[in-house]
Amino acid sequence: MQSNSLWGGRFQEQIASTALEYTESLAVDAAMLTEDIWGSKAHVIMLGANGIIDDEDTRAILSGLESARREVDENTFTLDVADEDVHMNVERYVTSRHGKRGARMHTARSRNDQVITDTRLHTRGLILGIEREVIALQDTLLTLAADHTDTLSMGYTHTQHAQPITIGYWATAYVGMFRRDLVRLRNAYRSTDINPLGAGALAGTSFPTDRRLTTELLGFADVQENGLDAVSSRDFGLEFLSALAILVSNISKIAEEIVYWSTHEFRLVEVADGYAMGSSMMPQKKNPCVAELIRGKTGKVYGRLVELLTMMKGIPTGYNRDLQEDKPPIWEASASAASTIRTLNGLLSTLRFNPDRMRELAHKNFALATEVADYLVKTQNIPFRECHRIVGETVGSLYRRNLTFENVEETVQALAAAGAKVTAEEIAPVLDPVVSVNSHTSLGGTAPAEVLRMIKAERERLEEHTHDVDAREERISSAFRGTEAISAAVIAGSGVQAAVAQWRGESQ
Amino acid sequence: MQSNSLWGGRFQEQIASTALEYTESLAVDAAMLTEDIWGSKAHVIMLGANGIIDDEDTRAILSGLESARREVDENTFTLDVADEDVHMNVERYVTSRHGKRGARMHTARSRNDQVITDTRLHTRGLILGIEREVIALQDTLLTLAADHTDTLSMGYTHTQHAQPITIGYWATAYVGMFRRDLVRLRNAYRSTDINPLGAGALAGTSFPTDRRLTTELLGFADVQENGLDAVSSRDFGLEFLSALAILVSNISKIAEEIVYWSTHEFRLVEVADGYAMGSSMMPQKKNPCVAELIRGKTGKVYGRLVELLTMMKGIPTGYNRDLQEDKPPIWEASASAASTIRTLNGLLSTLRFNPDRMRELAHKNFALATEVADYLVKTQNIPFRECHRIVGETVGSLYRRNLTFENVEETVQALAAAGAKVTAEEIAPVLDPVVSVNSHTSLGGTAPAEVLRMIKAERERLEEHTHDVDAREERISSAFRGTEAISAAVIAGSGVQAAVAQWRGESQ
Amino acid sequence: MQSNSLWGGRFQEQIASTALEYTESLAVDAAMLTEDIWGSKAHVIMLGANGIIDDEDTRAILSGLESARREVDENTFTLDVADEDVHMNVERYVTSRHGKRGARMHTARSRNDQVITDTRLHTRGLILGIEREVIALQDTLLTLAADHTDTLSMGYTHTQHAQPITIGYWATAYVGMFRRDLVRLRNAYRSTDINPLGAGALAGTSFPTDRRLTTELLGFADVQENGLDAVSSRDFGLEFLSALAILVSNISKIAEEIVYWSTHEFRLVEVADGYAMGSSMMPQKKNPCVAELIRGKTGKVYGRLVELLTMMKGIPTGYNRDLQEDKPPIWEASASAASTIRTLNGLLSTLRFNPDRMRELAHKNFALATEVADYLVKTQNIPFRECHRIVGETVGSLYRRNLTFENVEETVQALAAAGAKVTAEEIAPVLDPVVSVNSHTSLGGTAPAEVLRMIKAERERLEEHTHDVDAREERISSAFRGTEAISAAVIAGSGVQAAVAQWRGESQ
Amino acid sequence: MQSNSLWGGRFQEQIASTALEYTESLAVDAAMLTEDIWGSKAHVIMLGANGIIDDEDTRAILSGLESARREVDENTFTLDVADEDVHMNVERYVTSRHGKRGARMHTARSRNDQVITDTRLHTRGLILGIEREVIALQDTLLTLAADHTDTLSMGYTHTQHAQPITIGYWATAYVGMFRRDLVRLRNAYRSTDINPLGAGALAGTSFPTDRRLTTELLGFADVQENGLDAVSSRDFGLEFLSALAILVSNISKIAEEIVYWSTHEFRLVEVADGYAMGSSMMPQKKNPCVAELIRGKTGKVYGRLVELLTMMKGIPTGYNRDLQEDKPPIWEASASAASTIRTLNGLLSTLRFNPDRMRELAHKNFALATEVADYLVKTQNIPFRECHRIVGETVGSLYRRNLTFENVEETVQALAAAGAKVTAEEIAPVLDPVVSVNSHTSLGGTAPAEVLRMIKAERERLEEHTHDVDAREERISSAFRGTEAISAAVIAGSGVQAAVAQWRGESQ
Repeated sequence: MQSNSLWGGRFQEQIASTALEYTESLAVDAAMLTEDIWGSKAHVIMLGANGIIDDEDTRAILSGLESARREVDENTFTLDVADEDVHMNVERYVTSRHGKRGARMHTARSRNDQVITDTRLHTRGLILGIEREVIALQDTLLTLAADHTDTLSMGYTHTQHAQPITIGYWATAYVGMFRRDLVRLRNAYRSTDINPLGAGALAGTSFPTDRRLTTELLGFADVQENGLDAVSSRDFGLEFLSALAILVSNISKIAEEIVYWSTHEFRLVEVADGYAMGSSMMPQKKNPCVAELIRGKTGKVYGRLVELLTMMKGIPTGYNRDLQEDKPPIWEASASAASTIRTLNGLLSTLRFNPDRMRELAHKNFALATEVADYLVKTQNIPFRECHRIVGETVGSLYRRNLTFENVEETVQALAAAGAKVTAEEIAPVLDPVVSVNSHTSLGGTAPAEVLRMIKAERERLEEHTHDVDAREERISSAFRGTEAISAAVIAGSGVQAAVAQWRGESQ
Repeated sequence: MQSNSLWGGRFQEQIASTALEYTESLAVDAAMLTEDIWGSKAHVIMLGANGIIDDEDTRAILSGLESARREVDENTFTLDVADEDVHMNVERYVTSRHGKRGARMHTARSRNDQVITDTRLHTRGLILGIEREVIALQDTLLTLAADHTDTLSMGYTHTQHAQPITIGYWATAYVGMFRRDLVRLRNAYRSTDINPLGAGALAGTSFPTDRRLTTELLGFADVQENGLDAVSSRDFGLEFLSALAILVSNISKIAEEIVYWSTHEFRLVEVADGYAMGSSMMPQKKNPCVAELIRGKTGKVYGRLVELLTMMKGIPTGYNRDLQEDKPPIWEASASAASTIRTLNGLLSTLRFNPDRMRELAHKNFALATEVADYLVKTQNIPFRECHRIVGETVGSLYRRNLTFENVEETVQALAAAGAKVTAEEIAPVLDPVVSVNSHTSLGGTAPAEVLRMIKAERERLEEHTHDVDAREERISSAFRGTEAISAAVIAGSGVQAAVAQWRGESQ
Repeated sequence: MQSNSLWGGRFQEQIASTALEYTESLAVDAAMLTEDIWGSKAHVIMLGANGIIDDEDTRAILSGLESARREVDENTFTLDVADEDVHMNVERYVTSRHGKRGARMHTARSRNDQVITDTRLHTRGLILGIEREVIALQDTLLTLAADHTDTLSMGYTHTQHAQPITIGYWATAYVGMFRRDLVRLRNAYRSTDINPLGAGALAGTSFPTDRRLTTELLGFADVQENGLDAVSSRDFGLEFLSALAILVSNISKIAEEIVYWSTHEFRLVEVADGYAMGSSMMPQKKNPCVAELIRGKTGKVYGRLVELLTMMKGIPTGYNRDLQEDKPPIWEASASAASTIRTLNGLLSTLRFNPDRMRELAHKNFALATEVADYLVKTQNIPFRECHRIVGETVGSLYRRNLTFENVEETVQALAAAGAKVTAEEIAPVLDPVVSVNSHTSLGGTAPAEVLRMIKAERERLEEHTHDVDAREERISSAFRGTEAISAAVIAGSGVQAAVAQWRGESQ
Repeated sequence: MQSNSLWGGRFQEQIASTALEYTESLAVDAAMLTEDIWGSKAHVIMLGANGIIDDEDTRAILSGLESARREVDENTFTLDVADEDVHMNVERYVTSRHGKRGARMHTARSRNDQVITDTRLHTRGLILGIEREVIALQDTLLTLAADHTDTLSMGYTHTQHAQPITIGYWATAYVGMFRRDLVRLRNAYRSTDINPLGAGALAGTSFPTDRRLTTELLGFADVQENGLDAVSSRDFGLEFLSALAILVSNISKIAEEIVYWSTHEFRLVEVADGYAMGSSMMPQKKNPCVAELIRGKTGKVYGRLVELLTMMKGIPTGYNRDLQEDKPPIWEASASAASTIRTLNGLLSTLRFNPDRMRELAHKNFALATEVADYLVKTQNIPFRECHRIVGETVGSLYRRNLTFENVEETVQALAAAGAKVTAEEIAPVLDPVVSVNSHTSLGGTAPAEVLRMIKAERERLEEHTHDVDAREERISSAFRGTEAISAAVIAGSGVQAAVAQWRGESQ
C-alpha cells in the first residue's frame, strides 16, 4: 500500500489503481536491478567509511544487499508493483530483513540521484555492448574486403553505372563509416560515464559525503558535480540515441544495397538461404527478408530519438516525473540496434558475391568514359572540360546505335568525329576495367594496393578501439569486484574504513 | 523447421537462428490471433460459396478454425516460433487436424493480403477503443464545465494574466479540441475500414473469388480494389498515428496546466492524493507525478509516428518485409494513448479546484484593462487604439507605484492624467471581474449563459459521435456473429451456399 | 519605435534590437497580407453593421484598407520591421491615412484571433493548391494507366519477381493511394475552414459582435466557438502537415521505383532527357536526379511535421508566442510538396516505358509459379499447400540447373518428379504471362478488363473530388467578391447595413 | 542552356523548366561561394604542384578564381540559375575568362567530392560560430552565478517546492549542461574536419594527385580516405544536427523557467522591457515573448534533424541527388540555434531577479523538511526512513491546519506527536533556509563556497575550450592565408612548386 510507504506521512488517500498502473515502471526498471544493488552498496560503504552510519548498520545493509544480489543472480528476486519501482523494492527487501538498520540505507540519498545513477550504469553497459557488435561487424567487413581486393564490380552513383571498383573498396567504405560510428559511441560513453550519486534530491546534502569514493566504487570516470544538473540532465541518453540513429542510417544503406543487389536484375549477390525467406503463395520466391527488415527497423531507432527529444522539450530543471520515460527509448533503441548489427553481421558473413555478373557489368555501359577523358587529358593535352564534351558525344553516338565501348572500332571513329584522334591499340587498355581499377592509386582510390593499405590501417584502428573497449570493461569489472570485495570484508567483520583502505592498497 | 515448411521446395538450407529470431513477429502478431481466425473463416466460406473448394473441405477447415478459436478464447492456443508468424501457426493447427483438406485453406490467398487484413481488423478495434476513451474524457470535461460555469478564474495568455474567465469556459475549450480529435479518429477509422483480402500476393487471382462476400463477413465498409495498392499501403496506420499524435499534443497542454496550476505559486488546483506521489527524501512533497508522466509520454506517440513514417519512406510497391514493422508502432502508440486518456480522465474527475485562489487572482494584476478600454470606447467615443494607450499608461503608472485597479481612486486619477475622465462610481462595476465575465456574451465568449449553450451543443455532438461509435461497433459484432453462424451451420452439415443465403436473408 | 506603439503605455524601454530581429515575422507574414486585409474588411463591416462603430468610421477604414489592397496588388505596399508584424503594418497604414477613425478598426479584436484567422484563410488556399496538384497527377496516372492496360511487366514483392502484371495495374495502385491522400487533404481543409475571428484575446468580447457575419464574409464553413480554443489550437496545421507527410511517403515510393527502374540493370523505364542530368566528371552519365530529389525531399515534409508537433508539446492554453512558429512549417512543407507533386507529374508524363524489357522479364524467373500451383489445384484437385510444395521443388530443381519455365520439357519432368503429372500441351498456356495476366479477373486484379473498370471508377471519383475543389474555391471567391462589393458600396456612400443586406439579397 | 553544358554530349533534349527549378540549389549554395573558390584554388595548386597541369594553366585558373573571389567580396559576383549550382558558376566564370586553360580546372575532380568539400568547409565555420555563441552564453551564466552565490531561492522538483538553493547554484547547473554541449559540438567539428577532396566521382583517380597537400591548404585535420565513403557520407551533418538538437533541448528548459518564473504567480524574475512585448488588445500586458519564442523554436532544430535522418535512410552508396538536400537543414538549424543562443544571452543578461520574492518562497511550504529529517538522523540516531515518516506526518498535520514550519511551536508539538522530541531552540536554525543552504557543502552542493569553487572550475574549463576554438579558427585562417599567398605568388609569376615550397618553409 503506497500511502503507508515511501512518502506515507503526507498523504491520506491511497494511490488510484489507474494511476499506479500508469506510473509504475518495474518492467523497465528490472533491467537495472543489478546496478541498483551495486549503487546501493557503494553508497552504503561510503556512508560507513565517512561515519555517517556506523559499521554495524553498514554491515547489516550490505548483508541484505548481498543477499538480494544473490537472489537476482538466481532469478528468485521478486518485484512487487506495490513498491512502485526497483529502488523501493530493493530497500524494502533490506528493511524487511534488517529493520531499523536497513532504514538507514537511504540516508543522504534521493531517488532522484539514485535512478539516474542506475540508468547511467546500465546505459554504460549498453553502449559497450553496441561497440562490441560494431567491432564484430567491422571484422567481418575487413575480412570480406581482404577477400575481395581484386573482385571487380561496378561502382554506382545515382544508382547508375559510374566507374569500375572492387568489392574490397566498397566494403572499406562502410568500414570508414562504422569507424566514425564507433567514435560517436565512445563519445556517448564518455558523456554517460559520470557519477550523479550524491546529488541528493537536487541540492547536495549536509551530510559529509565523499562522492569521489562512490565514483571509484562504481568505476565512473568522473563526478557530475552540480546536483541540480545531475538530476535534471538526460543529454547522455540523447547523445547515445543520436549515435545509434546515425549508425542505423549507415546500416540502412547497406541493407538497401543488399536488397537491390540480390534482385534478378542486379544479381551481384545472393543471400544465403539461412537469411532469406520464401512465400506462402509463390513457390519460386527467395526473398531477402532479413535485409528488408534491417532497413525497416531504421525507424525504430529514429523514433526513439524523437521520443526522448520530445520528452526533454520544455521541462524545467529538477527531477520531473517525465524523466521516468527516459529509459524505454534507450533500452529499446539499444536492443533493436544490437540485434540489427548482429543480424547484418550474419547476413554479410554468408553473403555470396557473383564475380561473373560483376565483371560483366564492369565492362558495360560506358563506365570507363572518365578514363577515356582522362586519357585524352594526359596524352593529347586537351583540357578536361573539352575531353568531357568529346567523350560525352562519343557515348551519345554509340548509345543511340546500341553500341558500347566494347565496339572498339566504332568508338575510335566516334571519338574522331567528336574531335579526338586515337588508335584502337592505344585505346584498348584504357577500356579495360581491370587496368582502370589498378590505375586508381590515388590516396583512398580503388586500386587493390591502396585498398590493402586501407584495410591494414583500418585493422589497426579497430584494434585500438577494441583495446579501448577492453580497458573500459575492465575498469567497470574491477570497480564492481572492488565493491564486492569491500562488501564481503565488511560482512565478514572488517571495519568499513579498513576494508576500503585495503582495497585501495590492492588496487594500486 | 522452416526449410521443410511454407516455402520448402525452393530452399536447401535452414534459416539461421539469428535470422529467425530477428524476423519472427509472434509476440506482436499474437494480438491479432482472433482476427486471423475470423479472416480465415471468412475466406474459406467465400471459397466454399464460390465452389473453389468443396463443402467437405470447407467444413473440415471451418471445424479446425472453430477449434482454434475456442482454444484462443480459453488461452490454450500455443504459438510456435518455428512457424514464424500467426498465420502459419493457425494454418498448421488446421492442417495438423485436417491434413489435405486443411491444405486447401490458403487457396487464392497470400500472406500479403492476409496480414494486412488482420492488421486492419485489429486496428479498427483499437481506434474504436481510443474513441471510447475520448468520449469518456469529454463526458468528464462537460460535467466539470457544467459544475463550473460560474467559477471565476484567471485567463492567461503568454502564461500572464489576461482576462477573467470561468473554469467552465476553460473546460469547454478542451472539449472543442477533443471533438476535433474524435473527427480525426473517425476519419482514420474510415481509412482503415476497407477490405484488402483477395488481393493475393499483389495481382489478384484467377480463381473466381467474391471479395464482396468477405467484405460483408468481416464487416468492412468497402473493398480496397487494386491488389498492389492493397498489399503495399499502410497509410491508414500513418493516419491513425497522426491523429493520436495530434490528440496527445492537446493532452500535453492540459497536463502542463495541471502541473503548473498545482504549484504552490499558482494553487489553482490540487491533485487528489490518489493521483499524486511523494518523495523518498523530502517528506513534505506532494508531486503531480501523474500529470507529469502524461506530459512526458507525448514523446512515445510522436516517436511512433516518426517510426512508421521512416519505415514507409522510399520502399517500392509490393509487399516488402519492412512492412512487418508497421504493427509495433500502431499497437504501442494506441496502448500508450489509451492509458493516457484514461488516466487523465481519472485525474480530472478527482481534481479539486480552488475557487478562493482563482477569485483572488481574477481581481489582480489589471486583468480588466481591456474592459476599461472597451468601456471608454463605448461611452466616450474614443477610438480603441487611443483607449488602449490611455489604459496602458494608467496601468504603467499604477504598477510602478505597486497599486492595482483595486485602488479605484488612484485609477480614476491615473486615467484622467492619461486623458480619460471617468468617475469612481461608473468605473467600479467595470473593474468587477464577475461583471466582466457576465458581459462577454459574444458567440463563444466566457459568459456563463454562453458557456451553458456551448455545453449543451457539445453534449449533442458527443452523443451523435457516440451513436456513430455504437453503430460501427454493432456493424463489426454483427459481421462477426454472421461469420460464426455460417461457420456453425456448415460444421453442423449445411451446404456453404445455403448457409450464406440463410444469413443474408436473416440479416436483411 | 515599438515602445510608443502598440503596447506603448505599459513599457518604458525600447525593445532590444536582438529581440526585435528574433521575434519579427514579416517575411513569413507577408504571405498573408491579402488575407489580413480581407479579414480586416470583414471585421470592420461587421462592426459597422452592428453599430459598434458608425458608418463614417467604417467607410474611412474600408477606404484605407481598399487602398492598401490595391498597393498589395501592385506590389507597392511596403512592410516596416519596426511594426513587427503584418497586422500592425496594415493598421498603421490605415491610421496614418485616417487617424482617429482608423484607430477604431481594432475594436473587439485581438491580434490573437486576427493572426489565426489570417493563417486559416491562407492555409485554406494552400490545401486547395495541393489538391489541384494531386488532381493533375491523378489525371496523368490515369492516362498512363489507360495507355498501358495491356503493357505486360513484372510485378515485384520484396523487389523480387513475383507475378506478371501490367503497367496500367501498377499505375492504378498509385491512383488508389493518392485518392486517399485527397480525402485526407479535404479532411484537413474542413478542420481549417472554421472561423476564429471574434474570439478576441481569449474570452470573446462584451461588444455585440456578429461572428456569423464575418464567417459568411470570409467564406468559412463554420464558427470556431470557444474563444480560448480558437486562439490556442493549431491542430488544423498538424492535420495538414500529417496529410502532406503521408502523401510524400507515397510519392517517395514512386520516386524509388523510377530510380531503380531506370538503372541499367532494370531498364524498365527511361527518364526523359529533360528530367535527367549528367555528370561533371563522367561523360557517359544520365542520372535520374529529379526522381532522387523527389525521394530526398521526403524529409523536408516529415521534418516540418515534427517541428510543429514539438512546438505544440506542453504549452498551456491561451495564445503563447511559441505559436508564431506555426506558419513556417506549414508554408514550407506545402511549397515543397506542391513543387514535388508538380515535378513528379512532369517526370511521369514524359517517362518512357520499355515494353520489350518488361516483356522479357515477365517471362523470366519463375514468375508464373503461382499460376502453375493454381492450375494443379484447379485441374488435379491437389490442395494448394501441396501444390505449393510441388512447384517449389520444381523451381528449385530447374533453378539449380540454370533452367527456367521456358524449358517446358524439363519443367514437365521436374513437376512429375515432384509429384504432379501434366503434359507440355496443357502446361504451355499456363506458362504464358499474357494468359496469366488476362486470367487475373478477380475484383481488383491485374486483368486488362478489370484495370479498365478501375480506371473508369477512379476517373469518376476524381471528377467528384474535382467538383468539390471547384465548389470550395467558388465559395471562397464568392465570399471575397461579396466583401469587396460591400466595401465598395460603403466607400461609395451606402450605409453599412444596407450594403450587407443588398449583398445578402443578391447572394441568395 | 544546360544541354550544351556540363554534360552536354550525352543529352539531346534541354532540361525541363520544372525540373530545373526543382533541382537548382543556388540560393542554398550561395552560402559556400567563398569555400568553393578556396577549394578550387587548393585543387588547382595541387594539380600544378604535381605537374598534372602546367604552371601557365595553373596561373590562368588562379587568376580567374582570384578575380571571382574579389567579386564575391564586393558582392558583384552574379549567379546564373542556368548553371545549376555554385560549382558550375565558378567554373564558367573562369572559363569565360581563360578559355582552354580554365577548362583544365576540373581535372581529377568531380562535383561529388567538390560539393562535399565545400559543405564541410562551410559547416566547420558554422560549428565554430555556434561554439562562440555558447561560450558567450556561458560567460553570462557564470557572471550571473557569481553575482548570485548568496541569492536564496527555492529549488523545485516536479515544479513543487523541494529545497532552498541559490540562484548561483541554479545558473551553474546550466553551465554544466552547456559545457557538455560544447564538447559535443567539438566532436561534431572533428567529424566534419576531414578532407574528401580527391575522392573523385567515387573511386579516386589515376592522376598523381596529392591529397595531403589539399588537406593542408584547406586546413583540414585529416584526409577522408576511401572515396566512396567520402562522397556518400553525411554523418558529420547528422552529428552536428544532433548536437544542436540536444543543445536546444537544454535551452528549452531555461526558456520554460523564465516564462513561468515571470508569471504573476511565481514573480521570481522580471524580463527587461527590451525582451518583453505587450498586447494589441490588453493594455496591461507585459509578455515574455522572447522566452516563449526560444522555447517554440526548439521544434525547428528537432525537425531539421529528422529531415536529414529521413533523407539518409535507405539510399545506397555513391553520390545520389538526394544528398543535395543535406545543406538546407544544416544551414537552417545552425542559423536558428545561433540566433536563439544569442537572444537567450541578451535575455539573461538583462533579467532582473526578485530576491525578496525568492526569499519569501524559500521560507514557505516545508522546503526544509529534508533538513529536519536529516537533523533527526544526525542527532537522535533514528534511521532515515523512520525520520522521513515522522517529518511526513508532521508536515501533513501542519498542512491540514494551514500552518507551516514558521509556526515553530506547533511544529515541535507535531514532531512529538509523530515520535520525535526536539526543542524549539534546537529546531529553529534547522528551519532557517540560509543555514540549510550554507550547510549543503557536499561536492556539487548548493553551499555558496561550493558554488564559488564550481564557478572557478567552470571558468577554467571554459577558457580551455575558448583556446581550443581560437586554435581551430587560427588553423583555418592560416590555411586560407597560405592558399591566398601561394595563389598570389603564382599569379605574380612564381612557379607552383616553388610557391608551395616557400609557403611550407614559412609556415614551419
